[in-house]
Amino acid sequence: MSVHLQTAPPLEVAQWLNVTEPPSLDRLRGKVVMIEAFQMLCPGCVSHGLPQAAQVWKTFSGDDVQVLGLHSVFEHHDAQPPRALEAFLYEYRIGFPVAVDAPGDGALPKTMAAYGMQGTPTLVLIDRLGRKRSQHFGRVPDLVLGAEIMALIAEAQDTTPMAEAAETRPSSECGDAGCSVSGTKTAGTV
Amino acid sequence: MSVHLQTAPPLEVAQWLNVTEPPSLDRLRGKVVMIEAFQMLCPGCVSHGLPQAAQVWKTFSGDDVQVLGLHSVFEHHDAQPPRALEAFLYEYRIGFPVAVDAPGDGALPKTMAAYGMQGTPTLVLIDRLGRKRSQHFGRVPDLVLGAEIMALIAEAQDTTPMAEAAETRPSSECGDAGCSVSGTKTAGTV
Amino acid sequence: MSVHLQTAPPLEVAQWLNVTEPPSLDRLRGKVVMIEAFQMLCPGCVSHGLPQAAQVWKTFSGDDVQVLGLHSVFEHHDAQPPRALEAFLYEYRIGFPVAVDAPGDGALPKTMAAYGMQGTPTLVLIDRLGRKRSQHFGRVPDLVLGAEIMALIAEAQDTTPMAEAAETRPSSECGDAGCSVSGTKTAGTV
Amino acid sequence: MSVHLQTAPPLEVAQWLNVTEPPSLDRLRGKVVMIEAFQMLCPGCVSHGLPQAAQVWKTFSGDDVQVLGLHSVFEHHDAQPPRALEAFLYEYRIGFPVAVDAPGDGALPKTMAAYGMQGTPTLVLIDRLGRKRSQHFGRVPDLVLGAEIMALIAEAQDTTPMAEAAETRPSSECGDAGCSVSGTKTAGTV
Repeated sequence: MSVHLQTAPPLEVAQWLNVTEPPSLDRLRGKVVMIEAFQMLCPGCVSHGLPQAAQVWKTFSGDDVQVLGLHSVFEHHDAQPPRALEAFLYEYRIGFPVAVDAPGDGALPKTMAAYGMQGTPTLVLIDRLGRKRSQHFGRVPDLVLGAEIMALIAEAQDTTPMAEAAETRPSSECGDAGCSVSGTKTAGTV
Repeated sequence: MSVHLQTAPPLEVAQWLNVTEPPSLDRLRGKVVMIEAFQMLCPGCVSHGLPQAAQVWKTFSGDDVQVLGLHSVFEHHDAQPPRALEAFLYEYRIGFPVAVDAPGDGALPKTMAAYGMQGTPTLVLIDRLGRKRSQHFGRVPDLVLGAEIMALIAEAQDTTPMAEAAETRPSSECGDAGCSVSGTKTAGTV
Repeated sequence: MSVHLQTAPPLEVAQWLNVTEPPSLDRLRGKVVMIEAFQMLCPGCVSHGLPQAAQVWKTFSGDDVQVLGLHSVFEHHDAQPPRALEAFLYEYRIGFPVAVDAPGDGALPKTMAAYGMQGTPTLVLIDRLGRKRSQHFGRVPDLVLGAEIMALIAEAQDTTPMAEAAETRPSSECGDAGCSVSGTKTAGTV
Repeated sequence: MSVHLQTAPPLEVAQWLNVTEPPSLDRLRGKVVMIEAFQMLCPGCVSHGLPQAAQVWKTFSGDDVQVLGLHSVFEHHDAQPPRALEAFLYEYRIGFPVAVDAPGDGALPKTMAAYGMQGTPTLVLIDRLGRKRSQHFGRVPDLVLGAEIMALIAEAQDTTPMAEAAETRPSSECGDAGCSVSGTKTAGTV
């Protein structure tokens, strides 16, 4: 099965916030990485995506799990510039590293396009070997997310993924709460 | 007692959103007016102040109560420009009229200063005769707000205010959730 | 219009809890009375009906509003005897007076039948003149309830009811959360 | 380290509900077992312990995880008899197997005493080899519980426990929400 697992695309970043040294997926090998893609004007991101990411950041050891925010703006570009994001992170007390997704040729920023994200919030889990293991658009229950992260922590650093026991399902709430890229109708799980 | 009740200061507004014709407190005489002062980057405004204002807007008849938003920016000015506010109102589906508080000489915008607001969210109730009757900084329980509004609706359009039966108390949560003007320590009720 | 308003049926009570002297609607004339009919094994009563009643009890002055609980058991009779109710009130810290609705000839207790209640939770508001003014089966938003109570407080003690400005609507949630008497399909408002 | 891990005490049960055949920890070897000890009149059990157990029951595969309720009554004994419990489980739609903890010589029922539980709700996790691995009194965040369960699922069926990466902490809320055995002051984690 492991033949299907691909290395996660590199993050294409215009600017990092909350960091002294810019992180990279390559240098994070050995840890589980959780990417929370969001927009500061996306209600579902503000009400549950970002609080959940902050909770993961507090709950798990930094030796095992690295949480990264990814500001992937695909609408209202001029209403969400990096200096507004900075104030937003300050007011919402978000302390983990946040990358500003690099602008693309069209409306979609580059990392968002490379990952095939349908909208925000999108949560991506990358295993200790740097491979993308799951991607959720919309709301993920804490119980399911805790189980998914631990399944990746539990894996030895080899190529054999453990079967996932938690049945991860897309939430029907996120169609309402999340912001989908035009043309994408429903929230879902890769 | 009515001798102490003063006409609410006029709104000093740089720009109106969600309106065809700019409202004024003068022309709103005869209705109860609720002003929700907020900032788009204030977490307490986003999580409860604005949803509560939207609830009032839906619950009470427009013949009795007019809800007005007031974007009173006193921090992160360049992160919350009117064009960002417009996108914010769209994403959060806020349909009642919203005024951009006119910039003042210092950090405080003019209407905010004229009302002596301590921060955001601040909720102001104005009676049918145009007099400011209560002003709350921070969270107000729905049960209390419903009672306060109805007490003002119930008043005949004369000068005799009814005694308020609901004991309105400042919430201890709003010190955390609200944004206070520098130097103001606690949420409170005028 | 007042010709249609009828005196609320008297409470038929097997036993009172949390009282030194049994209250009666007659002796409560002059106050607004809120009756919260519930069952201790009704999930919607436990999660929102009773907490809301406790909130009303704390928010309004006892000179204006009297909150009364009414344990109206119409199912699982032997699972909810008065001695279990006593332990329940203790654990849930319910301090307002609670009446045990008197058993009727069929499954329905007497007061529940006299008021034509469809199930639990049911909230009844009685005006200062002892007349039933509204009856809700299921969830009532706090904003609406605060307004309804204040409208009754605001009435002078004469026979002219004020028009209700809050548009009280039955909640679609209470069909799920409430317990309806067999044959009653939906929550509603009298 | 495994030398310290002991086989979980057997369940001492007066009666099973929601089962066709009484389960036993012995016969459940090979699965992770989660025991939710509760009382039907314990507010914290009703508001979060039991809903969380129901969520675990729905989220994880029955091949990996078995959820068991344990009705451990140590107060208000005559207010919570098995026939009341039956009605309670019906109204709250709890479908997983529930054991009535066998009465002991004192106030504490036998299984509760054997596990050294401090009160309700208490959550116990037992690994695939039948060993008690964690015991929490009070509220456990979903994120932490999901991780703990998955850590046990991930273990091969041998004697080497994996290190727990989630830092499980006792919640300060559960002192309020949970019911502690007399003399026990705070919620905690074994």
